[in-house]
Amino acid sequence: MPKVLSTMDKSQSQTVKALLALRELVLSGELLPGERVSELAMVERIGVSRTPLRSALVRLETEGLLEVLPNGGYAARQLSVQDVFAAIEIRGAIEGLAAKFAAERRLGAADFQPIADTQREIDDLIDRNQPNGRTFSSYVPLNERFHEQLAELSGSLFIQQQIERANAHPFASASGFIDVQTQMPDARKILLIAQDQHICVLDAIRAGEGGRAETLMREHARLAQRYLRQALEDQRAMDQVPGASMLRRVS
Amino acid sequence: MPKVLSTMDKSQSQTVKALLALRELVLSGELLPGERVSELAMVERIGVSRTPLRSALVRLETEGLLEVLPNGGYAARQLSVQDVFAAIEIRGAIEGLAAKFAAERRLGAADFQPIADTQREIDDLIDRNQPNGRTFSSYVPLNERFHEQLAELSGSLFIQQQIERANAHPFASASGFIDVQTQMPDARKILLIAQDQHICVLDAIRAGEGGRAETLMREHARLAQRYLRQALEDQRAMDQVPGASMLRRVS
Amino acid sequence: MPKVLSTMDKSQSQTVKALLALRELVLSGELLPGERVSELAMVERIGVSRTPLRSALVRLETEGLLEVLPNGGYAARQLSVQDVFAAIEIRGAIEGLAAKFAAERRLGAADFQPIADTQREIDDLIDRNQPNGRTFSSYVPLNERFHEQLAELSGSLFIQQQIERANAHPFASASGFIDVQTQMPDARKILLIAQDQHICVLDAIRAGEGGRAETLMREHARLAQRYLRQALEDQRAMDQVPGASMLRRVS
Amino acid sequence: MPKVLSTMDKSQSQTVKALLALRELVLSGELLPGERVSELAMVERIGVSRTPLRSALVRLETEGLLEVLPNGGYAARQLSVQDVFAAIEIRGAIEGLAAKFAAERRLGAADFQPIADTQREIDDLIDRNQPNGRTFSSYVPLNERFHEQLAELSGSLFIQQQIERANAHPFASASGFIDVQTQMPDARKILLIAQDQHICVLDAIRAGEGGRAETLMREHARLAQRYLRQALEDQRAMDQVPGASMLRRVS
Repeated sequence: MPKVLSTMDKSQSQTVKALLALRELVLSGELLPGERVSELAMVERIGVSRTPLRSALVRLETEGLLEVLPNGGYAARQLSVQDVFAAIEIRGAIEGLAAKFAAERRLGAADFQPIADTQREIDDLIDRNQPNGRTFSSYVPLNERFHEQLAELSGSLFIQQQIERANAHPFASASGFIDVQTQMPDARKILLIAQDQHICVLDAIRAGEGGRAETLMREHARLAQRYLRQALEDQRAMDQVPGASMLRRVS
Repeated sequence: MPKVLSTMDKSQSQTVKALLALRELVLSGELLPGERVSELAMVERIGVSRTPLRSALVRLETEGLLEVLPNGGYAARQLSVQDVFAAIEIRGAIEGLAAKFAAERRLGAADFQPIADTQREIDDLIDRNQPNGRTFSSYVPLNERFHEQLAELSGSLFIQQQIERANAHPFASASGFIDVQTQMPDARKILLIAQDQHICVLDAIRAGEGGRAETLMREHARLAQRYLRQALEDQRAMDQVPGASMLRRVS
Repeated sequence: MPKVLSTMDKSQSQTVKALLALRELVLSGELLPGERVSELAMVERIGVSRTPLRSALVRLETEGLLEVLPNGGYAARQLSVQDVFAAIEIRGAIEGLAAKFAAERRLGAADFQPIADTQREIDDLIDRNQPNGRTFSSYVPLNERFHEQLAELSGSLFIQQQIERANAHPFASASGFIDVQTQMPDARKILLIAQDQHICVLDAIRAGEGGRAETLMREHARLAQRYLRQALEDQRAMDQVPGASMLRRVS
Repeated sequence: MPKVLSTMDKSQSQTVKALLALRELVLSGELLPGERVSELAMVERIGVSRTPLRSALVRLETEGLLEVLPNGGYAARQLSVQDVFAAIEIRGAIEGLAAKFAAERRLGAADFQPIADTQREIDDLIDRNQPNGRTFSSYVPLNERFHEQLAELSGSLFIQQQIERANAHPFASASGFIDVQTQMPDARKILLIAQDQHICVLDAIRAGEGGRAETLMREHARLAQRYLRQALEDQRAMDQVPGASMLRRVS
């Protein structure tokens, strides 16, 4: 579970429940852009009371999944491709700052042990031949762990929270594209490149090269733009991407 | 009024009222870190009902002014100097992206008219001799307008909202330091430098130099770190900075 | 033949002859660091008169292949690994500027035709399975053509000349490592990554993203550091690298 | 005397003599673009023999002050404003690398003593009121010392030599503009900004912020573009700039 959510204690568990359920309803397309979210229906469907539901609605609005309607209430947000590209760049910029901070702190070898282990696990995974659906299923959690460990190396809880928030935006994180990736013809190439960027960013951090570590993470984030572009050219692939219903497309 | 707030219509006006009032109470130090905010007391003091108050509490938590207490409820957030420096860098990184986007869109001369006018107004203001309190009182709104117009040049409403959000963090924006600035011995020098960065970033955007425009805005944001460092060395100056009570200081 | 040399006309053909011959003697290790180059022996061996030989010696000194000895005359330069890494970064920085200039000029689709053709030829080459010696023999001239075409897109003859000069430094350009590459276990992976960087830098230039194009070229140049590190761990591989005799190694 | 020249020993003193004299003749406009430099006349005028004169001609060609004529021989190089801007960016890029290397080496406080002393001397100089001709006469050597000390902090002799070479290009270094600066209406402002960049780059290096140190030095180099633009608008000012005769201007 993401850090921000896990810091909420039991008194907040109802808000967490509402948050996860609403998020799922938006990303799966059950709640469509422009359609007012009915508090009453949600209270019933999710099984929480009004107060935690409203907290969750406010939070999802600040994360960019919902928007406030002109006459009050919330609806799933309508996103343009340009908005999504901006969200990807923002995620990359903040992860880039985390990498810069890590490089400039001058950590010791022991600090790198956990993330180096994750890197090796990913190496083992993609060294096997032609990746299949199972490769990606294993890759996604390892990749998320790598990114979380990198954020921790920044030494700033504030930065970690901001990264988590930036990742909450639909499409901003790479993980949403898993089903698209599996079917992309150059799936293996992209995995090799992504992992090589992981390795290079660790090298840069170890060498105290903050500027290089930062630009590598920003370039790494841009892979998500590539996935999105490929998905946009293939309606069947796009249908598998969580949040696809939020995306306004020029038809 | 900031964009995000102004898009909330009347049905949200109570939330806006609660938001502004709570913000003021935190920044002025009436609500102290660690002390649970009493919903009942706030409802009475601010004059709004529970629902908008709670919306405001959630929103201020996502902005980093409040934190969730272990046993439920909210309190003003305790900030470290390192957190504040990270918040300043994040604000700079997102404003840097706005400048990059603006440069890469290739705007026409007419698009620059409004921001160029603001730049000239600031030029006129600081060309007069030794700045005084009144200079700064005039500078702050002009500076805010310049930054808003720059964000608009990005062409992305999403980026504008993220900048506004980043500025909501106490200390992240330069405007909080106005009273400190007025009394700083090198006040005029800093104003000249800040305005020169404004002029250079516009030149870079006009010339399509996205990378340069971005790094200039990031360096510009770092001026806030300089203000904070100076204020930290002078308790009397620090007492005038909104949010000072949130800052944990090594004593 | 490189641009700088080809602009020398026939009256300079003797200098070009001396330049190429001396370069070969240094890189092959016939002229060793610390050993004074005998003008007399060179005049005889290369078959040029003293004047063009001396011009060539001066030029190779400015390029970093020769150094002036304390008591006069020239010798092959002794290089540290750190010097070589610096030379690689300088090459990357200047190629990065070329990419930035190209992006900020806003070229038309026709301007990209020649370099896009080269990119596709490289794509075709490395799409075939496991690369062998022949793949690399074909890759090197295509890669050099790509880099020359990129330098031309900068629109600055001055930048092109400076890139050529930076490439003249032993090890700074990737082409010196061809024999090492062929035998590296991850040869194919590195080729895929290098070519992906080519494709991304063209995308960035087309989109007017100067900052991104620049950092991509700098990262691309860093591949040469990787080759060098791998070669340094394997004496047999190192013996095949032109200029290996110039490199001072901590033993 | 620059490092590269000072490493030439007495056996090379005639080449150094020829180099300095030829340089002066080109920058003062006695040797004009397109006019073939007569070896015979130079031998007589400078008082050196042919061999060192030819060495000097080759070296000045690699530095970009001379060019090879189609039918042999050398002439002062015709420069476009675009070439000069590129030369300024290259100088900034290499000085930027020096600052990056310095930041990533993690030096101790003692290493910064000499350059910090220079910084304070410049502070003292420009704290006095309105600068006059004497201020600039004192500023130029202090500024050159600051830049040399910064290059030394890189720890790479190779980088130092490349910076020196980049500075040899007419207009690339700030020092050529001293007479223009003295008469510029915003002379004091530019001095304040330049010195503030010096201070910030030292702060960034001390803090291990390589990326920031690098972009600051690049922005610092851009001040020379500003001087050139101002000089180009004022023929009388331009006549005082060394190398003005080399510059092709659209009339």
